[in-house]
Formats: sequence, C-alpha cells, structure tokens
Amino acid sequence: MQDVLVGDRKVPSRLLLGPGPSNVHPRVLRAISEPTIGHLDPDFFRIMNETVLLLRYVMQTDNLMTIPMSGTGSAAMETAMLNALEPGDRAIVCVCGVFGSRMADMAGRFGAEVAVVSSPMGRPIAPEDVRRAFKKAAAPVKLVAVVHAETSTGVLQPLEEIAGIAHENGSLVLVDAVTSLGGVPVPVAPLHLDIVYSATQKALSCPPGLGPITLNDNAFRAVSGRKSHVGGWYLDLSLIWRYWGEERFYHHTAPVNMIFALHEALRLIQEEGLEARFKRHESNARSLAEGLEAMGLRLLVDVPYRLPTLTTVIVPPNVDEAVVRSRLLSEYNIEIGGGLGDLKGRVWRIGLMGYSSRRENIVLFLSALEDILGSLGVAVERGAALAGAAKRLM
Amino acid sequence: MQDVLVGDRKVPSRLLLGPGPSNVHPRVLRAISEPTIGHLDPDFFRIMNETVLLLRYVMQTDNLMTIPMSGTGSAAMETAMLNALEPGDRAIVCVCGVFGSRMADMAGRFGAEVAVVSSPMGRPIAPEDVRRAFKKAAAPVKLVAVVHAETSTGVLQPLEEIAGIAHENGSLVLVDAVTSLGGVPVPVAPLHLDIVYSATQKALSCPPGLGPITLNDNAFRAVSGRKSHVGGWYLDLSLIWRYWGEERFYHHTAPVNMIFALHEALRLIQEEGLEARFKRHESNARSLAEGLEAMGLRLLVDVPYRLPTLTTVIVPPNVDEAVVRSRLLSEYNIEIGGGLGDLKGRVWRIGLMGYSSRRENIVLFLSALEDILGSLGVAVERGAALAGAAKRLM
Repeated sequence: MQDVLVGDRKVPSRLLLGPGPSNVHPRVLRAISEPTIGHLDPDFFRIMNETVLLLRYVMQTDNLMTIPMSGTGSAAMETAMLNALEPGDRAIVCVCGVFGSRMADMAGRFGAEVAVVSSPMGRPIAPEDVRRAFKKAAAPVKLVAVVHAETSTGVLQPLEEIAGIAHENGSLVLVDAVTSLGGVPVPVAPLHLDIVYSATQKALSCPPGLGPITLNDNAFRAVSGRKSHVGGWYLDLSLIWRYWGEERFYHHTAPVNMIFALHEALRLIQEEGLEARFKRHESNARSLAEGLEAMGLRLLVDVPYRLPTLTTVIVPPNVDEAVVRSRLLSEYNIEIGGGLGDLKGRVWRIGLMGYSSRRENIVLFLSALEDILGSLGVAVERGAALAGAAKRLM
Repeated sequence: MQDVLVGDRKVPSRLLLGPGPSNVHPRVLRAISEPTIGHLDPDFFRIMNETVLLLRYVMQTDNLMTIPMSGTGSAAMETAMLNALEPGDRAIVCVCGVFGSRMADMAGRFGAEVAVVSSPMGRPIAPEDVRRAFKKAAAPVKLVAVVHAETSTGVLQPLEEIAGIAHENGSLVLVDAVTSLGGVPVPVAPLHLDIVYSATQKALSCPPGLGPITLNDNAFRAVSGRKSHVGGWYLDLSLIWRYWGEERFYHHTAPVNMIFALHEALRLIQEEGLEARFKRHESNARSLAEGLEAMGLRLLVDVPYRLPTLTTVIVPPNVDEAVVRSRLLSEYNIEIGGGLGDLKGRVWRIGLMGYSSRRENIVLFLSALEDILGSLGVAVERGAALAGAAKRLM
C-alpha cells in the first residue's frame, strides 16, 4: 500500500525461438497500438466480421462458428471441453505430452468420465489404441480429444485414422492445433474435425491473448442441445455467439486491440498464402534439423512425426541445459525452451514459428549454440552445423 | 474457405465517452506495441513483479495475491465466483443492475444456492435487506457479492454497512469494482473487502483484456482450503498463483503485450497520484451533471449515489435514443452508451473514465448533444449546458 515508484519497463529485444510466443511482425505491433474503439462500434463489428473471414481462411473451413476466444490457447481448450462435455459424458483423451494431460484434467473437472490413451514421450498416439479404448467403453463416447502438434514434445500427430475411428463410433473429434495452425496444414474440412482450437502466439505470430476456435455443425448441435447449463459463463459459446453472430448482443467487452493485432497477423498470412507459408515452415525446420544433427546432436522425434514449427533436441550428456538457455538469452538475446513435465532437463525446444521462421534466425541460432556448447567443452565441430543447414539454405 | 481479400482495418478515431472502453493514453498504446517477449523471460518476471506492485498501489492493498487475470472483467468476476464457491455453498448476491444479475447467474452455475437481494433500477441496495437475507438463510452463508459501481445504472453503492453485516455473519465480501477502480476510492483495506476485482478498460484507461483481482488472507484460505476441485482450469487461482507467485511454474502463456499496457497505465496513475485522480473524476462528473441538468435533462441517480465515472441520463420523451447515439458517432466521432437490460431505450450512459475524463471532452460532448437534440426539436436552450458546466470548469 506504500507508495511505489516503478520506472519504464525496459523491454529487451529478443529473438523468440522457443515454444511460443514467437516474434511478432512490426505491422502486427503497429496494429495492436491502433487507438481503442468500442466493442459495439459499427466499425468494430466490421473488423470482427473481417477477422472471422480471415480465420476461416487460415483454418481452412467454412464453419459458421469460427471466432477468437477472449483468452489464451488454454482458454480455447477450456472452451472446447466445457461446452462439448456434460457431467457424466464419456471422453477418450489422447495423451502424448503435457497438453494432452491438460485436456484430460479439464475434461475431468467438467464431470466427464475420461479414458486416457497414451504414448511414450516423443511418440504419436497409435490409432489402434484409440480403437481399443472404444471397445472397452461401457457406453457411447461423446468425444475423442487429440493434440495435433504436441508443444511439449514436438510431435506432429497424424489425425486421419483417429478421426475416422472416432466418427465410426459416433464421437466428436476435438483437436488441439495450438502449435500447428498457420505453420502446418490442419485438416479441419477434409477430416470433418468437429472442434479445433488454437492460440495466437505460435505460428500466427500475434501476441498471446486470444484463442481461435471453430466448431462444425455437429459440434454446434451438440453444444446447443445440451441438457445442462454450461458450468461457466465467460466461455459459454451459446452466449458468446449472440455477440459474434448476427445479433451483436453484448456479452463481455471484447479485447479490441488484441483483435486488431490478430486481424493484421491473419492479413499477413493471407498475403503470403497458406501453401507458401507451410513450405517455408517445412523447409526451415529441415535446415535446422540438419544443422543440429551435423553438430552431433540428436532429435527426440522420428523423422515422419517431426513438427515443422517445433524441434525437440536431446541435451548432450553432462550439459546443464539451463546454463545453455540462460547464456543464449544473456549473450545472444535468443530465447529457446526447456523441457516440460517428464522431459524437464532432458530436451531443448526450438521453435521456428511464423515470423520467427526465417533463414537468418537459423544461421544465428546454430552459430550461437555451437559457440556456447564449444565453450562448455562439448565436442562440436566448428562450422559443421552451418555446413549441415546450408545444404538446404543455399 | 474461398480466398478472401481483407484490406486494412481503417480504425476510426473516437472519443470514448461510453461505459467503457475509455480512451487510452498514447503512452499506453506505445507500451502495448513493445516487442513481445517470452512469458518465462527473467525480464518479463521483473515486469510482472512491478505490475503487481503497481496494482497493489492502485487497489490500495497489501494483499499478496493481487494479479491481473488473463481475460476481461467478466473473467475476473468468474474467477472470484468460481474459486470462492463450492457446490452447495450459500451466497447472497446483491442485484441492482445487469452486473449484479451476472454475478447471480455465475454463482448459480458453480452450484451455489443463491439468495438475491435487489433494489429498483438506479437505486443502491439497502443494507437492511442484506441483514434480512442473512436472517432468512437456513445455514451459514459463504459470501456476499455486491457491485461497487453498477455500470448498467451509474449507481455508486455504499459498502461499509453491507460489508459489516457480512463479516458479522462470518461471510466473505466479494466486490465488483469494474467501473470504480482508478476513478473512485475502493475501500479494500479499510473495509477488509475479501475479494475485489476490476477490468482494465474503464478508469484504468488501458485496452480491454485483463481483469485485476485481489484476495486477502481470509479469501485465500477459503480458496486453498476447498474440499472440491475448482470446476475449471483456466481461472483456477491455485494453479495461476504458482505462475504469478515465487515458483514461476508455467500455467498458461501470459498475454505479454496486454501486461505491458497495464504496466504503463498503472504508471500513469502512480504519476498522477490516486487522490488527484479521484478529485479529477469527481469534479469532471459534477461539471457534466450540471451541464446536462442546465439543458433540462434529468439524471437517473440521486446525488449521493452518483458514480463519478459514469452518468446515466434519462432520455427525453419522444426522442429515439439510438438516433442520438448514432448521430453523435457519425457526426462527432463520440461514443456514448445506451441502456442495458430494463433500461434499454430509456437512458444514455456517459462515461468520464481515466484518460477520457477531461474538461475538453465535456465541453465538446455537451455542445454536440445540444446541437443534435436541438435539431431533433427537443427544447434545449442553446448554450445553457456549457454555462451550467462552466460554473465548475472555469
């Protein structure tokens, strides 16, 4: 309660190569600072409509209900679980990392009976395990939840078979696309994924704070046909739809400036084109992987399941991974991520997402890592990484 | 799914004199556009700590748990209800407008048995009604919820007696300070208010998107001593505290740029000083009221309960209030609010909050309103409003 005297923030200038947030394009930073207007201003309604159009393009769907939730990706995850599940419903949750576990935790909090299907860290979920879970289920399963791009391990989960099994069994398919949307194709329409959500601060390269979500007609029907009230108000889609839909009925004050930022981030994707953007992410991730492997480092994930947006590197023996991260930050202003959950201390997570996925960043990062590992006595051949990456970069 | 071509946003420049958002100071708009950094960056931890210090100053409390929730004011409301209440708990909710009703709705969704104490629109809650509700209650009441500044009516609710009655009866006191914090003194410490929350886009003059909340030791004990899991994950304070507290354990990706903005908005309050800020809001609201009354308009709320941040004006007979608002917007770029709920079509809501609470805005608004009402054939004496307001403005 005493008087404080807090000075300027002194925000450092970082190269963000962790699991998110990624660097934000200068145009998006300008957009977020456009003067705030009212959440019921006709011009804001126009910007909301445009944002929905752009989101549908980036999510590659015609789904009517495609909106940004007023919270981070975890709020979008909660929105999906909270609205789709009623107490007593059965859910199969695929857990191959921290974010799968989070989905299972949430589903349980909303009263669902959760069956977990898991895979070892760094491996995708095996579709036959999902089929087995259906066979074991005593009653119909309302939904199957799966993480498309597991941010804690760097695994890209193939979705086709799992979605097929779920639909055969009359279940909704709920997909976490937090670390894939905008960097990797998310097959919303082709696989009839019923509920898909994401976050703004990964491959969309917008500041964190919004959670895009899309629901198809099946999911929308399930939500509007609930027997019980949603156990929450802020993330109740039926209420929020009255604001984002034609009615424009006030629900909560939309985070106006965050919407400006998302609008601009999506416009940048529109300008680049989704196909070109996917190719850029794919090619840069391969360069990074080749550079790391040329240095003698090992990656956690097998080639077919490697996520173009996030690469998990196994920390070499006798290296304190936190020291390396800390030196990258203090000496080079480069942020990368450490391991989460069971992988804590065992891996680095290197993100090449959106505006961060650029050739010059790969070159700088590999040089910095080589420098620091060399100075810590790890046997790395100087210049090997760049030569490795260069095969592709040149 | 077809290609879209969305152009620039073309954000208009508005004078925001509605119920929020208010205009944002240029320094805050610059702050929100500072380059994004990681939510686990040591420099971000420092900025988080400074934000907490500033929030404690502005909320006038030493409460350890004083943090901004990663959602709007409604998310902060939900945080308060969700964490404090367990299924079967009893709550008394004071309803004197839309936001009181929202609190009652939420408390019910979280399984509480809710007793509503209400007052007519535009009047504050009578403390004796709260006492009566306690007498009627069959079992101990866990909390009493009350709106300090009812944004739908413009009523400033006296809190002392209600807080006293609640505490005598062993209940927690939960206060909605969305439209008061930063513009009107909120007696967090003097009245031992147990849980108080607010929003950023009103008298703090920051863009919408964060919901500051503070809990004292009693409330903190009630939350951490819960028998059941919180029925949600995103707003679970015990989890969030592991990130905002000393542990710095990852929960969700903080809305980094919104925190930059809040930090700067709070620094502006620190520079102005709370006392000076309260006086400015008080004096400007009186000028506005005198100007409006000099024009022959009537205010909804009696003098002792008028909210300095928000003034409710009764729409004169035979005037379509929406036409006036629409013309203020299109001809003058001025936004004011219409009525909510039962007051729809019957009042205008004029906010003078934070950076919007300035002499030049009052003069412009009164002139514009006089012009439009005059042109609609309402008998207003030209110049009367300004002369009325001027008594104080000069």
